[in-house]
Amino acid sequence: MNTTQKSFTFAESLDRLAQVAVRVGLGIEPGQTPPQELLISAPVEALPLIRRVAEHAYKAGVTLVSPFFYDDECILARYKYARDESFDTASSWMADAIYTAFKGNAARLSISGGNPALLAGQDPEKIARASKISSQVNKPAMEMITRHEINWGIVACATPEWAALAFPADPIDQAMEKLWDAIFAASRVHADDPVAAWKQHSQDLKLRTKMLNARSYAALRYTGPGTNLVIGLADDHKWLGGGGKAGNGINCMPNIPTEEVFTTPHKDRVNGTVRSTKPLSHQGTLIQDIQVRFENGRIVEATASEGEEAFLRLLDTDEGARRIGEVALVPHSSPISASGLLFYNTLFDENAASHIALGQAYSSCIRNGDEMDEKALEAKGANSSLIHVDWMIGSGEIDVDGVTKDGAVEPLMRKGEWVIAV
Amino acid sequence: MNTTQKSFTFAESLDRLAQVAVRVGLGIEPGQTPPQELLISAPVEALPLIRRVAEHAYKAGVTLVSPFFYDDECILARYKYARDESFDTASSWMADAIYTAFKGNAARLSISGGNPALLAGQDPEKIARASKISSQVNKPAMEMITRHEINWGIVACATPEWAALAFPADPIDQAMEKLWDAIFAASRVHADDPVAAWKQHSQDLKLRTKMLNARSYAALRYTGPGTNLVIGLADDHKWLGGGGKAGNGINCMPNIPTEEVFTTPHKDRVNGTVRSTKPLSHQGTLIQDIQVRFENGRIVEATASEGEEAFLRLLDTDEGARRIGEVALVPHSSPISASGLLFYNTLFDENAASHIALGQAYSSCIRNGDEMDEKALEAKGANSSLIHVDWMIGSGEIDVDGVTKDGAVEPLMRKGEWVIAV
Repeated sequence: MNTTQKSFTFAESLDRLAQVAVRVGLGIEPGQTPPQELLISAPVEALPLIRRVAEHAYKAGVTLVSPFFYDDECILARYKYARDESFDTASSWMADAIYTAFKGNAARLSISGGNPALLAGQDPEKIARASKISSQVNKPAMEMITRHEINWGIVACATPEWAALAFPADPIDQAMEKLWDAIFAASRVHADDPVAAWKQHSQDLKLRTKMLNARSYAALRYTGPGTNLVIGLADDHKWLGGGGKAGNGINCMPNIPTEEVFTTPHKDRVNGTVRSTKPLSHQGTLIQDIQVRFENGRIVEATASEGEEAFLRLLDTDEGARRIGEVALVPHSSPISASGLLFYNTLFDENAASHIALGQAYSSCIRNGDEMDEKALEAKGANSSLIHVDWMIGSGEIDVDGVTKDGAVEPLMRKGEWVIAV
Repeated sequence: MNTTQKSFTFAESLDRLAQVAVRVGLGIEPGQTPPQELLISAPVEALPLIRRVAEHAYKAGVTLVSPFFYDDECILARYKYARDESFDTASSWMADAIYTAFKGNAARLSISGGNPALLAGQDPEKIARASKISSQVNKPAMEMITRHEINWGIVACATPEWAALAFPADPIDQAMEKLWDAIFAASRVHADDPVAAWKQHSQDLKLRTKMLNARSYAALRYTGPGTNLVIGLADDHKWLGGGGKAGNGINCMPNIPTEEVFTTPHKDRVNGTVRSTKPLSHQGTLIQDIQVRFENGRIVEATASEGEEAFLRLLDTDEGARRIGEVALVPHSSPISASGLLFYNTLFDENAASHIALGQAYSSCIRNGDEMDEKALEAKGANSSLIHVDWMIGSGEIDVDGVTKDGAVEPLMRKGEWVIAV
């Protein structure tokens, strides 16, 4: 990475992050044709970043930037004070609006940064009900995201609650500074030319996917403490990583940062046990030390040392919530993992360790999957669910093998590091 | 007004303002049936107020509070950097969503407080184009507001830019404190029981409308410096003031504060000249010393000492923009007027002085008007337009007479004060 020795002011770093979000994450180039609208979802604390994003987006030719700010305290007020039946309510009018905007080729930027433990202490049953109805009404819009029909992206923004959780030993000002530094570094904003640095990084990830696609493994085998798992891969699966071309023709990089290569497992061909290697922060609840057993793709036993009730409810969302829809490989030496930090935020923690995701599969990880209907995707082994929840199973103690169609076993990772050349 | 001598902390005052917004403005009573959703439009600076509103709303039984925050800097970024054709773009998907929410009986709260001079210095032609397309896509939702089909309300929130404009001689901290004090006072939040105080005030305004409705004047005549104007009133016009029952059956008080009684003029029966008595802040442009001449309801001459171009563009929005849709009487001694302040904010300034509004009439100010279609309303003399813009024509130097159907002239106001008993 072609970094300089320059130091940057916070304002300069923030402006560069906004530029990376627009130019790399969303792939919006100056003078883009046809011009797009841009929808942004962000915590209110992200306002200074959003102002920089709005300027870069308008300068690149976006016609209208619509930021939707959410506030953790307003969300919490609902759990504290709203009448019980309200938890079966979701604003379908808003979900429809977002779907309509996406259908009209709007781009979508999410800012990650809400308090990961916001809903700790709230009734898990209410959280599950609210989450389920929200997933239902938002399904058409979310499918456009999982099918990558439009250019979309996520970048992070430090907030005090998140910083306090990630850096519990530090006073809040220092914790915020450290979290911002981690975000700026992982987002490669201090490279001489951040846009070029991201192109190079994307190229590196693509070489890895090319190697894996050439091998076309039938399954992956994971071994390590508490883990002895075979994950069959979907028929005609395809490894992806780095940037990709969305259905609307725009090259974008959905996750900033990203260190993973990922594909679609076969929903019926997962067997054995696996232990989580980092806590999962799901809708404000921390879930620690997950241990599950799969039989023919289905989770038949599940425990957690903390947040078990929330995890079991998550598995009960629908039939697909007990099966996995994504498998991703990340070397233990990735920059985010090397920081040694636990971020309690999926965007960071999933790029520090190999992981799997419960629920919905990405159709783009099946050859020609974006043109298939749900039934055809299912026949390939792609899982379907209202949820898509990543959790970490990789560490410096995990070995991963590739199992070929004729049963040969090839070492892919040892102690969390790649051992096969690209 | 049954005020106490107690002093209140800022947090207490803010909480009381939130309570007034929910209980009085929107008329949402605890245990309300059927429960409603609540949409809020607010500047980002209103976050502390919105958090109090969310809590009171959920406690009163609202199922879902959806705050939509706007940010002046993001709006300004559009005018500075967006490509030219973007000013003919509006997010119709969002306008449709709000209309759908209103049709589903959602309540609507607006927080007034953006920088009144935000767009000063921006291209008036772009402002006019953006405003026109926005009015067009939002027309169905706005008609539900003007027809009062749902409970809706506006309250104010101090912001630094507004405070600096209203109190230019003070340092910003003191200006903010003074503006908040003015908002709290005008919103009657320090009464022993603010909800009861508003009921009493509403009753006082209703007695005034009862008197005016009993007289059923054919016209009002205004005389004063630069003003010699006869405003014919619509056939079957009805005076309104204070609270009212919305089409969904909920008693609400749309404007907090409110000091006006108002009705619908006849769109073809306005003749003579009139001069504005306070500056009009329209979409970020200040328009000063408006002077217009009406002929048979239509403005045929118009000048302004400042912002004339913006005013002329406003008149050119559509045919109805040159005619008036509302006439309102406010005594010069009203509490807001007595403060002697100019707020550069219609919610305050329109309750400090008698005023007229260019554009759309309120159908609720015509007997049975809420059941009439546009054609029937027009036959009564109600004006129709994409805009509804109030400006002030009252002061301590203006006399108002009522002209009866048989031509008798009765004094209503002298030097801006009521001279006819309720």
